[in-house]
Amino acid sequence: MRVQNVDLGERSYPIYIGDGLLAQSDLLKSHIAGKQVLIVTNETVAPLYLDQVVSTLSGFQVTTVILPDGEKYKNLEVLNRIFDQLLTKKHNRSTTLLALGGGVVGDMTGFAAASYQRGVNFIQLPTTLLAQVDSSVGGKTGVNHSQGKNMIGAFYQPEAVIIDTSTLASLPERELKAGFAEVIKYGLICDENFFAWLQLNYQSVLNLDSDALIYVIEQSCRNKAEVVAQDERESGLRAILNFGHTFGHAIETFQEYRDWLHGEAVAVGMVMAADLSYRLGLLSLDQAQQTKALIAAAGLPVIPPTNMDAQQFAELMSVDKKVLDGHLRLVLLHAIGRAFVTSDFSADKLKLTLSSGFHLCQ
Amino acid sequence: MRVQNVDLGERSYPIYIGDGLLAQSDLLKSHIAGKQVLIVTNETVAPLYLDQVVSTLSGFQVTTVILPDGEKYKNLEVLNRIFDQLLTKKHNRSTTLLALGGGVVGDMTGFAAASYQRGVNFIQLPTTLLAQVDSSVGGKTGVNHSQGKNMIGAFYQPEAVIIDTSTLASLPERELKAGFAEVIKYGLICDENFFAWLQLNYQSVLNLDSDALIYVIEQSCRNKAEVVAQDERESGLRAILNFGHTFGHAIETFQEYRDWLHGEAVAVGMVMAADLSYRLGLLSLDQAQQTKALIAAAGLPVIPPTNMDAQQFAELMSVDKKVLDGHLRLVLLHAIGRAFVTSDFSADKLKLTLSSGFHLCQ
Repeated sequence: MRVQNVDLGERSYPIYIGDGLLAQSDLLKSHIAGKQVLIVTNETVAPLYLDQVVSTLSGFQVTTVILPDGEKYKNLEVLNRIFDQLLTKKHNRSTTLLALGGGVVGDMTGFAAASYQRGVNFIQLPTTLLAQVDSSVGGKTGVNHSQGKNMIGAFYQPEAVIIDTSTLASLPERELKAGFAEVIKYGLICDENFFAWLQLNYQSVLNLDSDALIYVIEQSCRNKAEVVAQDERESGLRAILNFGHTFGHAIETFQEYRDWLHGEAVAVGMVMAADLSYRLGLLSLDQAQQTKALIAAAGLPVIPPTNMDAQQFAELMSVDKKVLDGHLRLVLLHAIGRAFVTSDFSADKLKLTLSSGFHLCQ
Repeated sequence: MRVQNVDLGERSYPIYIGDGLLAQSDLLKSHIAGKQVLIVTNETVAPLYLDQVVSTLSGFQVTTVILPDGEKYKNLEVLNRIFDQLLTKKHNRSTTLLALGGGVVGDMTGFAAASYQRGVNFIQLPTTLLAQVDSSVGGKTGVNHSQGKNMIGAFYQPEAVIIDTSTLASLPERELKAGFAEVIKYGLICDENFFAWLQLNYQSVLNLDSDALIYVIEQSCRNKAEVVAQDERESGLRAILNFGHTFGHAIETFQEYRDWLHGEAVAVGMVMAADLSYRLGLLSLDQAQQTKALIAAAGLPVIPPTNMDAQQFAELMSVDKKVLDGHLRLVLLHAIGRAFVTSDFSADKLKLTLSSGFHLCQ
């Protein structure tokens, strides 16, 4: 088992990474302060792991909430089902919520914990690669509003994150690869050596080699923890974690979140950000091409949807802009491992990137 | 104008108290960081003060949300109307929410600010005495759930509290007196000198004498700020602010929140807490009687509802108990100005208090 600490003063917490951790009763129990536990999971994950987690909690009052699976259920109405159960079963301020599932379960459970009686403890038990390397770490919690993603939420840190890599064996390969896009992201934004390691070893990860999995999750969490420790509430540096995401969100919005997975959209977004960085004279052509090559080798898309043109990209990215703060800011690369945030770039070069299609990074 | 600071490190903020402050454009503007403002108010307050506040905000993008008036609208569904407007009008992370109204408006606006895009600024503009001396200060925000009051919320501090005492001229006398119950509470729990001042001057306050009003609001806010500064998230000391409230909540629940105002229920609750403190040998009979006498002199009830018996009190207080943490804790008095929290008291003495009716503090 590996342990990575997220250093946030009195809100610090450990991330445990290992094979079979969901079966380790003592590990989980050591982070539960009271006698009441409410497990939130979804219809897909419940049949696989819920009994196992419940069985480790003998001696506790255990309540379970099984949500429908999918981003479209990540809203205030479904969130209220968690509050219903907490109140029906008389959970008090010393209860602990457990988030057993992927990013949607983690985001909703975290926000429920942030809000129930103005704040109770929670623990993340992420079961997808995306949640294990990204959404379960860093305290971003929340739900969607019909007019925007993640518009209602809180920065609220868990007591612990317990990552059982054996859960990835049940994850569809396409979701594994989509999660791997966020792994590559850490190499690109802040860890050149990790990027180089991934170039050599990506296949071991995708083959679910246990040591390789534990290593990439540990390195990803370490990189994320370092960024979050410096900027918990995203007033500056933390924005680099959005590398590839402004392009990616435009794709997801264009497809109404129906076709590509988040990680797939981010994968192309990272290629586009690398392409723009190259066009602006910031990133070498060689490094832009290495970026695209690793993403392609991992089986992820490197070309935007063919039915989406530069005009559509520009419009959807400018909607994003207005919601943020009146300026379109992008995360770009000086080099592999050196990302920065800027709103100072040539609009003409951006248009070239948006219309490059097959010719990105060439 | 008087200024009282709430000392919470980087979350510190000023409380301004004065006659006519809502008309002071520069004061309000000095606490607004961005260019967007959303004012939340209700149907009762809007006709009285909304135009005035809007007129002080020239140069800003101003959005208004007018909620129905009343505790029964303090829920997630009505809260969502605030998010609807924020998103429809494209408010970004640098927007500021203004809470113009009483406690319900303040609690909902504060929780909306805590949750919108994971946290934006807000300013309290309380227009009832209860909100001015209690709910607008200290950062407790939230909404009710069908199964419990204030069960969903956040500890989230405003940028400033601006208290315009002239708004009290439009407040129904019954609501003024109910707010005054919380003023008396500060004297009882932590400020003997303030209690003595109130014994001599309560009539000036209820007559809306401007200097007297400013003085009692300032002293109330100072006392609350000192308690909150020591225990922001209510892990200990802050619970003394609930003096009289466990008894009061039982009355409110019994009446399904229909008959008495919160402050009226708390008024009797404080007499009951004083009575129990006396029966337990903690508080002198003289001080128990002074407590009851001031509450009665202020035109507040000092006898529980006659249709409510000791059994009903005990049951409703034990429901409160279960939701909290398995032990019934009460705030009692060693003396006027010296409250403490305990779960160590004689159940028999409590029964005597619950059945004393007209004979409380005798």
